[in-house]
Amino acid sequence: MFIIGEKINSTLKAVRPAIEAYDAGAIQDLAKGQAEAGADYLDVNAGMFHNDEPQRLTWLVNTVQAAVKTPLCLDSPNAAALEAGLQAYGGDTPMINSITCEKDRFEAILPLVLRYKAKIIALCMDDSGMPETADERYVIAKRLIGKLTDAGVKPGNIYIDPLVRPVSTGPNYGAAAIETIRRVKDEHPEVHIACGLSNVSFGLPHRKLINQAFLVSAMAAGMDGAILDPLDNKLMAFVAAEEAVLGIDEFCIEYLGKHRKGLFDGM
Amino acid sequence: MFIIGEKINSTLKAVRPAIEAYDAGAIQDLAKGQAEAGADYLDVNAGMFHNDEPQRLTWLVNTVQAAVKTPLCLDSPNAAALEAGLQAYGGDTPMINSITCEKDRFEAILPLVLRYKAKIIALCMDDSGMPETADERYVIAKRLIGKLTDAGVKPGNIYIDPLVRPVSTGPNYGAAAIETIRRVKDEHPEVHIACGLSNVSFGLPHRKLINQAFLVSAMAAGMDGAILDPLDNKLMAFVAAEEAVLGIDEFCIEYLGKHRKGLFDGM
Repeated sequence: MFIIGEKINSTLKAVRPAIEAYDAGAIQDLAKGQAEAGADYLDVNAGMFHNDEPQRLTWLVNTVQAAVKTPLCLDSPNAAALEAGLQAYGGDTPMINSITCEKDRFEAILPLVLRYKAKIIALCMDDSGMPETADERYVIAKRLIGKLTDAGVKPGNIYIDPLVRPVSTGPNYGAAAIETIRRVKDEHPEVHIACGLSNVSFGLPHRKLINQAFLVSAMAAGMDGAILDPLDNKLMAFVAAEEAVLGIDEFCIEYLGKHRKGLFDGM
Repeated sequence: MFIIGEKINSTLKAVRPAIEAYDAGAIQDLAKGQAEAGADYLDVNAGMFHNDEPQRLTWLVNTVQAAVKTPLCLDSPNAAALEAGLQAYGGDTPMINSITCEKDRFEAILPLVLRYKAKIIALCMDDSGMPETADERYVIAKRLIGKLTDAGVKPGNIYIDPLVRPVSTGPNYGAAAIETIRRVKDEHPEVHIACGLSNVSFGLPHRKLINQAFLVSAMAAGMDGAILDPLDNKLMAFVAAEEAVLGIDEFCIEYLGKHRKGLFDGM
């Protein structure tokens, strides 16, 4: 599984003050912790700072890069903020979170994807609003893949996010996201998935149970990447367990290694 | 989910002595506990008592029926033992665990299924041995469904067990079972699944993690029944969480009810 660490995000109450105060040590601790826990990319988001998002995102990029070599996923719908961050970035292939099929957003962000040869998270949403069904999501995914590859983006650099909505607000939303993942991977095996998880449990008690169940279901449907908290040991244990169940981890070599390191202790 | 409680089983080290000693109280405690925890059926197995399995199984049937009204799933490959147990049984529709596509076993057990109008667990195995791939499993499942319905068994009384083998011994075994479940439910929506779970983790540490991941994956593929330990609160919590994720539990009504009863406390 391709893990994008979600912790360096201004929408998180526990993290926002560190960005507000330019607390480099706190941000770098989050970067190191997530990298050590197995994150392949680190998401950086300064979206709550409406007045100076480009500067804040640039500061996050510089601060994190001074601490770890893990590549970054620049997270904003704002092309100006993304461009500032991308200019400051000097690591391996950058990633952008995210483009959608909304006309204005697509046109603003596509040039950055091309100029910086970035991996791109493509969210199943268009100008008609948030999709309800798996069919609606798949139609948007197919359109995004077509438009991106027509523009020259390699399929292997596209990461579809099926847009996970809370099951407390619509009984079909979990199944729709899972079915979308299956269809995208069946029809476009070279394209990846990078699914945000935690929305699924919004409004429910014991959210971790729901998040764990959704993670495993989505992996069983072919999800090969996720935006999640790699410091959540139990969630990461389920990533390892499901890779063993699905045979991605042949003969459970990785699973046994993690067990020997004590990563499953107390579970 | 249709839950078949697996605890009253002579192959379990903790349970065998109670059957050996005709300890009715211990067996009835297991029956009551599983029924209260939400078991729809209770499996009863006396297979370790080779010399007097028919008498032991009859004793189990009478002992459990004296304690709970939950219907029973008589578990043996031995037609004589099954018949003795079925004669003693007086509850709702009995269930038999299991028939296979092995010629002798099929011919010995089919008459009991018909005579007692039993629900029947049909295990994906034939005279060529244990299947390796999903294709092999599905071919056997299809043959079992065909032969049983031709003989007059209602599709809704057939419960396919995809034969789960340990992922520690074959990397494909988890995925093969999951794929078999998906194909059976896609092609035969009236037929049910009754999957044994715990084999999947045989030989691995932290087996519960693997069992939980497999349970959730199989439910996401359409598994609507399982043979499991209903006294395992965490496993039962994942049944509830996954029913919420899949929208089987619309608007999470059951999930919220279980939360209010404290069934997820400490998770």
